[in-house]
Amino acid sequence: MSQLAPEGTLTEVPIGTFTTEAGAAIPGARIAYQRWGSPLPDCSNVLLVEHALTGDSRVDQWWGELLGPGRALDTRRYCVLSANVLGGCQGSTGPSSPHPDDPGRAWGSRFPALSIRDQVRAERALLSALGIPRVRAILGGSMGGARTLEWAALYPGFLRAAGVFAVSARASAWQIGIQSAQIAAVENDPHWHGGDYYSTGEAPLGGLATARRIAHLTYRGELELDERFGTSAQRGENPCGAYRSARQRFAVEGYLDHQAAKLARRFDAGSYVTLTDSLNRHDIGRGRGGLNKALAAITTPTFVAGVDTDILYPYHQQEHLSRNLSNLLGMAKIVSPVGHDAFLAETRQMDRIIRDFLGRVPGDPPRADAPGSAASLPV
Amino acid sequence: MSQLAPEGTLTEVPIGTFTTEAGAAIPGARIAYQRWGSPLPDCSNVLLVEHALTGDSRVDQWWGELLGPGRALDTRRYCVLSANVLGGCQGSTGPSSPHPDDPGRAWGSRFPALSIRDQVRAERALLSALGIPRVRAILGGSMGGARTLEWAALYPGFLRAAGVFAVSARASAWQIGIQSAQIAAVENDPHWHGGDYYSTGEAPLGGLATARRIAHLTYRGELELDERFGTSAQRGENPCGAYRSARQRFAVEGYLDHQAAKLARRFDAGSYVTLTDSLNRHDIGRGRGGLNKALAAITTPTFVAGVDTDILYPYHQQEHLSRNLSNLLGMAKIVSPVGHDAFLAETRQMDRIIRDFLGRVPGDPPRADAPGSAASLPV
Repeated sequence: MSQLAPEGTLTEVPIGTFTTEAGAAIPGARIAYQRWGSPLPDCSNVLLVEHALTGDSRVDQWWGELLGPGRALDTRRYCVLSANVLGGCQGSTGPSSPHPDDPGRAWGSRFPALSIRDQVRAERALLSALGIPRVRAILGGSMGGARTLEWAALYPGFLRAAGVFAVSARASAWQIGIQSAQIAAVENDPHWHGGDYYSTGEAPLGGLATARRIAHLTYRGELELDERFGTSAQRGENPCGAYRSARQRFAVEGYLDHQAAKLARRFDAGSYVTLTDSLNRHDIGRGRGGLNKALAAITTPTFVAGVDTDILYPYHQQEHLSRNLSNLLGMAKIVSPVGHDAFLAETRQMDRIIRDFLGRVPGDPPRADAPGSAASLPV
Repeated sequence: MSQLAPEGTLTEVPIGTFTTEAGAAIPGARIAYQRWGSPLPDCSNVLLVEHALTGDSRVDQWWGELLGPGRALDTRRYCVLSANVLGGCQGSTGPSSPHPDDPGRAWGSRFPALSIRDQVRAERALLSALGIPRVRAILGGSMGGARTLEWAALYPGFLRAAGVFAVSARASAWQIGIQSAQIAAVENDPHWHGGDYYSTGEAPLGGLATARRIAHLTYRGELELDERFGTSAQRGENPCGAYRSARQRFAVEGYLDHQAAKLARRFDAGSYVTLTDSLNRHDIGRGRGGLNKALAAITTPTFVAGVDTDILYPYHQQEHLSRNLSNLLGMAKIVSPVGHDAFLAETRQMDRIIRDFLGRVPGDPPRADAPGSAASLPV
């Protein structure tokens, strides 16, 4: 029997040497996770929640209003697990982690490229290490949705249902284009040092900020941004003066600068490159006879949702999923001016969607307060 | 009587000292133009065609299938004029032009910021210098559409009608955001030298290429890009290898790199910044009591067209124009997977739209071959 971490506490779990889809090894890999609520002995009430690109295991922060007693992710009913992704920078092994054979130095450029499948296989290793043989459902949006979809494809017996939000069956050329522009912004920063900046005392924060500014414009709908900022000037600045100056900004520039600075403070540039690259590699069809054949082979009941104003993962991509998945559990459209981020921001709609999804998962739903008081699991 | 330039020949015309909307002076300003077809003595068959951001006066290149005898811009019927924009780099005065008081050195950072209105006022000065007291119509797309709309607002008696394609009444916050990211890419290139790189023997070509890659993704629809490239690898490269490398690209990256390199060869980075900044400043409502009041005050009959898949100037922005312009001549939707660039690429639809527009211009249409043989004008 494996003891789960105390509720809400970030805990690292060693998963041994991890070998990537493309054949590189990560010895001494660790995955960090958190959990809320208690598991039933047969794990039939365990939910795995997958975070997006710059998210992490703190579901209580990014889906905070959806997690807790009586909420959609009802912790009286479910044991909610979330893991920081392999390649990330919030507890799991990534480019900024110490290299096991090179004490005191980070992986940096030696950290291999990852696919979405790699991330899922690392999570599978985590759950094995925790002694969790199966879960009730896995769900997530954006990169979290991509992982959820790969879970459904890779381990059909492991989950009863998948909830896939605001994502596609594979990266589109447009996504690859705009994501590659972000990667280039980081890699072209003179402080990047080919990925080995960790011991230089510098960091490619300017490049990371540029990447985030671009990314944020793909996460947010133009209607919402325009409603908030329009052509207003940043307070105290004049972007329509006689000479152009980067210090005289429109309000939307100030907002994007703020978002960029916030990310640069909390996120590692190496992880940003690794994870963005993994999104470029997202392709359910790779090695499975093509996209639609791969989707048709997914027998896991899958619920799909998308955002009507998403320009990063346009709704037709979720419609494509819904047409080609073998076992469509349900379909929902989030209606919002917010764009892609609506799966995070439109709490009331997501509440209904997640409740609807969880209600459709095959098998009797767990009762509220059914779990035993001990957060322990059979081996 | 002023003699027009020989058909198709780029000709520079001095317009004296130009003072911008924000109060800076450009002494010795010149505007370069081309013309096709011959003007009637009363100029009632003159069309002014406005180019987009990185276009120029060579309408025969970017709307080549629409220009010529029997075509939509019928040179037996019309005299088609097009001017390189002030701030550009194809003959008109811009940041790369020699500064009149500093022989042998370029304007560089001394070149003032421009608004779309400034560009229009410079074109007005050109037409005055040519002795053209009025034109039949003005038309253009994107930044050319923004100038056309400002023409309609600034000089209502000068044109009988305006054809405004794939643009909005003002910059949106999203446009400002993504355009500012492009400006930053150029300005952060170490070869930019604050805009004064002209005498350094270097040029911010990397930054300009980055800007173009981003811009191109706003010009092209994701459906079209995906149909062409999907997740294919660039020939001979492997973007899914064990380690990420900027030299192992997806096909769409190779395509964007090609587009970027093409632009960097033909376009000045200083002009790119100046003109992109002018798009940020585009606002029909500025100083006119707000957007809708300004549009309602435009009495010039105006034809509006947009592209259904345009993410840079979404179609609802053209619908907004159509609802608020006082005198809507007509409205057309270009249906295309191409996105914003459809106003350039969808030749057959543009042919019909321009014919429809020109057919609705008030007053008898000029007859084919009506113009006298001499390309001359009354003073």
